[in-house]
Amino acid sequence: MTDHAHAPDPTPAPLPRPRVKMKPKSNARALRHGFPWVYANELVTDRRTRNLAPGSLAVLEDEAGRALGLVAMNTASKIIARMLDRDPDAQIDHAWFVARLSQAQALRAQLYDAPAYRLVHAEADGLPGVIIDRFGDTCVVQPNAAWAEVHLELLTNALAEVTGCQVILKNASGRTRALDGLDDQSAVLKGSAPTAPVPVVMNGATYMADLTGGQKTGLFYDQRDNQAFAARLVAPGARVLDVFSHVGGFGLAMLAAGAGHATCVDGSAPALELAQAGADASGFADRFAARQGDAFDVLTALGEEGAQFDVVICDPPAFAPSKQALEAGLRAYERVAKLAAPLVRPGGYLGLCSCSHAADLTRFRNASARGIGKGGRRAQLLHTGSAGADHPQLPQLAESGYLKSVFFRLD
Amino acid sequence: MTDHAHAPDPTPAPLPRPRVKMKPKSNARALRHGFPWVYANELVTDRRTRNLAPGSLAVLEDEAGRALGLVAMNTASKIIARMLDRDPDAQIDHAWFVARLSQAQALRAQLYDAPAYRLVHAEADGLPGVIIDRFGDTCVVQPNAAWAEVHLELLTNALAEVTGCQVILKNASGRTRALDGLDDQSAVLKGSAPTAPVPVVMNGATYMADLTGGQKTGLFYDQRDNQAFAARLVAPGARVLDVFSHVGGFGLAMLAAGAGHATCVDGSAPALELAQAGADASGFADRFAARQGDAFDVLTALGEEGAQFDVVICDPPAFAPSKQALEAGLRAYERVAKLAAPLVRPGGYLGLCSCSHAADLTRFRNASARGIGKGGRRAQLLHTGSAGADHPQLPQLAESGYLKSVFFRLD
Repeated sequence: MTDHAHAPDPTPAPLPRPRVKMKPKSNARALRHGFPWVYANELVTDRRTRNLAPGSLAVLEDEAGRALGLVAMNTASKIIARMLDRDPDAQIDHAWFVARLSQAQALRAQLYDAPAYRLVHAEADGLPGVIIDRFGDTCVVQPNAAWAEVHLELLTNALAEVTGCQVILKNASGRTRALDGLDDQSAVLKGSAPTAPVPVVMNGATYMADLTGGQKTGLFYDQRDNQAFAARLVAPGARVLDVFSHVGGFGLAMLAAGAGHATCVDGSAPALELAQAGADASGFADRFAARQGDAFDVLTALGEEGAQFDVVICDPPAFAPSKQALEAGLRAYERVAKLAAPLVRPGGYLGLCSCSHAADLTRFRNASARGIGKGGRRAQLLHTGSAGADHPQLPQLAESGYLKSVFFRLD
Repeated sequence: MTDHAHAPDPTPAPLPRPRVKMKPKSNARALRHGFPWVYANELVTDRRTRNLAPGSLAVLEDEAGRALGLVAMNTASKIIARMLDRDPDAQIDHAWFVARLSQAQALRAQLYDAPAYRLVHAEADGLPGVIIDRFGDTCVVQPNAAWAEVHLELLTNALAEVTGCQVILKNASGRTRALDGLDDQSAVLKGSAPTAPVPVVMNGATYMADLTGGQKTGLFYDQRDNQAFAARLVAPGARVLDVFSHVGGFGLAMLAAGAGHATCVDGSAPALELAQAGADASGFADRFAARQGDAFDVLTALGEEGAQFDVVICDPPAFAPSKQALEAGLRAYERVAKLAAPLVRPGGYLGLCSCSHAADLTRFRNASARGIGKGGRRAQLLHTGSAGADHPQLPQLAESGYLKSVFFRLD
């Protein structure tokens, strides 16, 4: 026994990390060039690999045993490994999360005047499967991958440090969580959940975001630029229609731009109550009307009434969420266009949106143009939009840009 | 002889219009749905049709002899007929031009605060092959189709009436004029040609447009929205680089947004003189530098100097103007990205543009991403842009949207 034995234990050497290996002829080259995923059929899955707990870390090797980086494993998912860091020895600790979140925050601080934006957009922000939306001093985290669930406390603490936010909520309603074997239990991670909708200013309007009861995180930031474009189409006093309005995204932006009257149509009474609350908070109450009902029914009824608007926007839910649903989805987009076109006055504007991954821009635009034609109108295409810059993409995944908007002027 | 013989001649009945017929199995359906062109191999070209003068009018029929509309003929062109009006009896007179131009003007007046825009964007504005750019009270017309050349006096008079413009210039430098068998003789159509560059305000900067000696019509309006996006990336005091700057499109917009210094690079000394004049007129002279030279050479030299910028934009000429030039063009785009990426500071921004029809967005984006990777950098894709809404498209021709911009943030 020596004095040395009485000294405090040195930090134990970390256990060697498990190593997982890509199969011969799998696409290690793509990962070297920034592709962030390994599919289950690309990885050698021996018993040791199959026993790795969901969300555990491993060093990914190519077929020759050369390290490609540090990955998060989930053998329950088709995406069996997600690249976390090109450095196989990276420590996924507080400092690591602070660095990633600081970079994400710096981008948004450059782009926006106020802290209301998507703060983290998953892979492109270096946090695979993690979505974080910021609403002033409240953040809503969607940890839609097993590794993020495992590291949620580290993530939460780093997020509080980087943003100074007092309230951090976990939203577990994302559909992709089930693909990663995760539950749907939302929670309060820090502070207290807001007891009322939170006001958020965008494009000159005040929106009311229900951060605990609402659809997804209560407000969609991705349409901000498209709502700004719609606002440019509004002449003073214009009458506008916002179909599938949710909490009034396009309608309130157009009122802020000087529209004389906006009608918001949605199937959800709670969403329309929030739209009304937003109109009240914005001072637009006397120029705002909500109409609850099935959007197709309301569009049909408005057509029978002979209603005419200067601007009509339709922003439906994903009609083509999967390849299997593509053809039916495109028919639904065409039908929306066909029903909406006759409601636009001659020389007025029609904006149509799709948030379907499976319907690419060309297909969606063609379906929209067909629908406009079947609705008896001719069109100029003025503008094609996508999600705002707080929704960055990895160039390697850019084909999957889900949000598309097309704005037409009708003869 | 009767009294009747002494009455003035009644207006003579117009000669029956020549009729031209589409071949069996040609795509008359596309024309019914708004496609604006008939290709030479789709039309029955008997001797009578071949003898129609370039720019003359005819009634287009489908194979069954049903009228599809009024077309402008040019048997010297691959596009043998262009749809002018769905009404086969339409009169292409002063009132017709006034109606088309008024509609085009109304759209731009809605979109822009000042009369500085593309007023007519050819087919999508109902005037096939005709480009008109407006610079305050001066218009520059590019009649790039034979029918427009034939009707130029009517067009000019209607344009003066609708816009109130005192000066109307004809620019005959468009490359497509040769395809329609037209000469390259520019002219003054109304008023007197300006003797000095014309100031044009966009995105808070003053640009100097040389309307008689410059490339195309002296200023490119199509990049306005992309220049506005670049301006959003500028932090106060930022150092920015605008390569292939022409008259300073991106550089001056970024100075207006608060950049501390802009370097504009172009091969053309006259273009850089206009950029300098714009910087002077904008009050940016002390923050502006011009560097003349081959852009590839300058990018290489800046790399060797170890220069670093907060924002770098490259807006080269069309490297892939045709399908034959596609592969070489994509290599050139990749090379631009490879040379430009190392000039961006860590966390800075790189904007890359293509005005090549042949290089679609996916190909251009992939070439850009490859170049960035070969330049040793990793990137987030923030934004994808296109030409502004004063460059509308027919939905049927939207695949050909020529202008693409991709904005990245580099690690």
